Amino acid sequence: MKAVRRAARLASLLLILFPSCSPRTPASSAGTTDGLDRTAESIRTRGLVDEGAFDFLRALCDLGPRLTGSEGAAKAVAWSRAAMDSLGFETWLEPVTVQHWVRGQAEAGLSVPGRPGSIPLAVAALGLSVPTPPAGLTAQAVEVRSFEDLDRAGSRVRGRIVFFNAAMDRTLMDTFRAYGEAVQYRARGASEAAKRGAIAAIVRSPTGRLDDHPHTGILTYEPDAPRVPAAAVSTLAAEFLSARLRENPEAEITLRMSCRTLADVPSANVVGQIRGTEKPEEIVLLGAHLDSWDLSAGANDDAAGCAQCLEALRLIRDSGLKPRRTIRAVLFMNEEFGASGGRDYAASGRRSAERHIAAMESDRGAGTPLGFFVGGDPLAAGKLEAFESLLRPSGILWVRTGGGGGADIGPLAAGGTVMMSFLPDVQRYFDFHHSALDTLESVHPRELELGAIAMAVMAAALAEKGI
Amino acid sequence: MKAVRRAARLASLLLILFPSCSPRTPASSAGTTDGLDRTAESIRTRGLVDEGAFDFLRALCDLGPRLTGSEGAAKAVAWSRAAMDSLGFETWLEPVTVQHWVRGQAEAGLSVPGRPGSIPLAVAALGLSVPTPPAGLTAQAVEVRSFEDLDRAGSRVRGRIVFFNAAMDRTLMDTFRAYGEAVQYRARGASEAAKRGAIAAIVRSPTGRLDDHPHTGILTYEPDAPRVPAAAVSTLAAEFLSARLRENPEAEITLRMSCRTLADVPSANVVGQIRGTEKPEEIVLLGAHLDSWDLSAGANDDAAGCAQCLEALRLIRDSGLKPRRTIRAVLFMNEEFGASGGRDYAASGRRSAERHIAAMESDRGAGTPLGFFVGGDPLAAGKLEAFESLLRPSGILWVRTGGGGGADIGPLAAGGTVMMSFLPDVQRYFDFHHSALDTLESVHPRELELGAIAMAVMAAALAEKGI
Repeated sequence: MKAVRRAARLASLLLILFPSCSPRTPASSAGTTDGLDRTAESIRTRGLVDEGAFDFLRALCDLGPRLTGSEGAAKAVAWSRAAMDSLGFETWLEPVTVQHWVRGQAEAGLSVPGRPGSIPLAVAALGLSVPTPPAGLTAQAVEVRSFEDLDRAGSRVRGRIVFFNAAMDRTLMDTFRAYGEAVQYRARGASEAAKRGAIAAIVRSPTGRLDDHPHTGILTYEPDAPRVPAAAVSTLAAEFLSARLRENPEAEITLRMSCRTLADVPSANVVGQIRGTEKPEEIVLLGAHLDSWDLSAGANDDAAGCAQCLEALRLIRDSGLKPRRTIRAVLFMNEEFGASGGRDYAASGRRSAERHIAAMESDRGAGTPLGFFVGGDPLAAGKLEAFESLLRPSGILWVRTGGGGGADIGPLAAGGTVMMSFLPDVQRYFDFHHSALDTLESVHPRELELGAIAMAVMAAALAEKGI
Repeated sequence: MKAVRRAARLASLLLILFPSCSPRTPASSAGTTDGLDRTAESIRTRGLVDEGAFDFLRALCDLGPRLTGSEGAAKAVAWSRAAMDSLGFETWLEPVTVQHWVRGQAEAGLSVPGRPGSIPLAVAALGLSVPTPPAGLTAQAVEVRSFEDLDRAGSRVRGRIVFFNAAMDRTLMDTFRAYGEAVQYRARGASEAAKRGAIAAIVRSPTGRLDDHPHTGILTYEPDAPRVPAAAVSTLAAEFLSARLRENPEAEITLRMSCRTLADVPSANVVGQIRGTEKPEEIVLLGAHLDSWDLSAGANDDAAGCAQCLEALRLIRDSGLKPRRTIRAVLFMNEEFGASGGRDYAASGRRSAERHIAAMESDRGAGTPLGFFVGGDPLAAGKLEAFESLLRPSGILWVRTGGGGGADIGPLAAGGTVMMSFLPDVQRYFDFHHSALDTLESVHPRELELGAIAMAVMAAALAEKGI
């Protein structure tokens, strides 16, 4: 009896010292909505008081830009693993070999016949662009507003610089759709122009604002087209250039860029997780990308998403929930130069013993949350809608089929993972996107936090209830 | 026959010169959703291209603060009527006699025993506060976090300055609810303190941010309580002060304010309208308030609402709709000092020949639109929900019962008017509210415009379909 009493006393002591060793309380058990409601409330309350996502965001932005292959990206890998280590999560790195393009200098000027000097135009090299000769390229410009325009221009573009001046369509409510329409000139313009004999391309920045900040981004060279240099030009410079070219079609543009591609670099996806207590091999993945463009620290794209993933894990841990399934944050490398991090993650041998039941991505900035898009099996979406009532007190307005997924988590879809994307308000997202304006100051701590809360609640529900 | 042909030719000519004289086209006739869909699309498209609301907002903010009774408010009355005149609307002013309180100078400092000098605290007089004596008031402070705390403090507050340090509750998703809880100390704190013998009150600013900007606002003196001076203190200064008072309960605050109330001033509500073609006496009212606080130009509160009302009228006109009922914008004077403009409007003899079928108010800032709250008759709300499908392409997520109305349009409720309030995203609204931060730069042109579009579409639908 004495031994029994001593054991009971020891157990009590252990429970006081290590409350997480206690038997599962109803609050965190599967199958009770009550428990999840309380978990969600704990997550929301702690998140709104602490606004911890903004602390993660600030630390990440303080490291500077995180261009794929750069020293900044390497620092971000080290920092984010250390941050998750210090929070007590299980962490590791998964190797990704990445391209290493460097921007160098870029400048452009417009020379009008009969006017001395050159008028500077705000430009930035597009990612993966080849450089110009050191002295630059000088040629007349041909303005087009579409690929149809380019076809019509025919042989006129030979030896010229093609100026793609397609404005982002402000009449579309969905700014991502407007971006999708405008961005094809950035992506394909250089090769389309080169195939017709052009020597370079400059592309109006895809933003709905009129300002003097070029918005960069990757281009894709077609294998059979000559590789010509290409730059983004600010919307104000594009308007200015267009007006001058109407007056003086003989005006010439000089473009000088020293960007270049260096040798590949070893890098990594950063993984941190709370291991599931009952089905640890079943995984709910929260994803964002750690790399950014290099004109700013990429606060919205996608330091915000990374900060939300870290904060979501933290909030789940602090809610006391011991999730039945594993909740894992993956900060992917190299979204911007082709999403190789996402592909390598999905293809890794480590995945063979795992089953990703759901994956959600945050890569649309830090605006006030609206909802979750759910792709794949519509049945799954029906099940997720059941989580709406759980999410509504945290400000989520809807959980809808269509558009779920994202560049990084996309490769997991083939394995039957339910694909989700977190959608915040994106009316102002493209103001900042890929430009020098995507700074910490463009993010509101509470709006950012609300996204972390929404992701945490959704992840907790998925980990407890399955799908 | 010749006369008939001549008349027909003349009619054709008139139609070309004055297309608005043409017979009603199906596009604008009542009873066809098609027509309203096209009207809504026209409103949305033009709004998103022009972003005209921001031009109105900039012009209004350029006039400076519009404190009730001030020269700035008088300029705003003249400007907004002229703006509506130049757009071709029927306009007039309706007189309102208003209070004229002036802020003067305000300063506060903390003196800690044994430390030389005084540490400045960022304060702003509360609206309607009496001044301190010219040399200021100096006394020990008693910090309380609630009126219950004040009761407990009992006689300790006699001869002291009461420091109301109730932080806005960040855990509430509804920032207006959090504001409502915190603002009672600003509104009633001075009299509650004075009734217990305090000589002044300072009140923590109701904002969820930690910064050094005091947020002002009106106070209400109880008739039987001594009138003591009261000031808002920034949240950072409140935190600082609280920490110092814990260390040194004997620390003294000096408060010096030269605010005062001058003689009443004649002012006006500004009215502009598109007269209804079939039931001109039935009115759909769009309302906002023209006056602001004086620490900034009040861009969100409520120049944004005024700009949206003007832009909504412009967008409806430019859509070509000749509404069956009258659509009227009213820019109310003196919301901030007691909403007398709204009361005078409702009580005016002009109302006797009019029937306001619905009134909507925009006074929650310029965030991305979420929905419309509809008060009063739940049946009416049911009918309004039918407009949801019309509003959805313009980004409106819901039309809901509960919470419809507002300080300015409120007095119309007694006449059976269906009360509505436009709700944008308000997560960051109280960052700016009543402080020096409520500037043009805090408003996003597209988000502002989306509100104008939503109000225009809702007003057009109500004017065509009734309720």
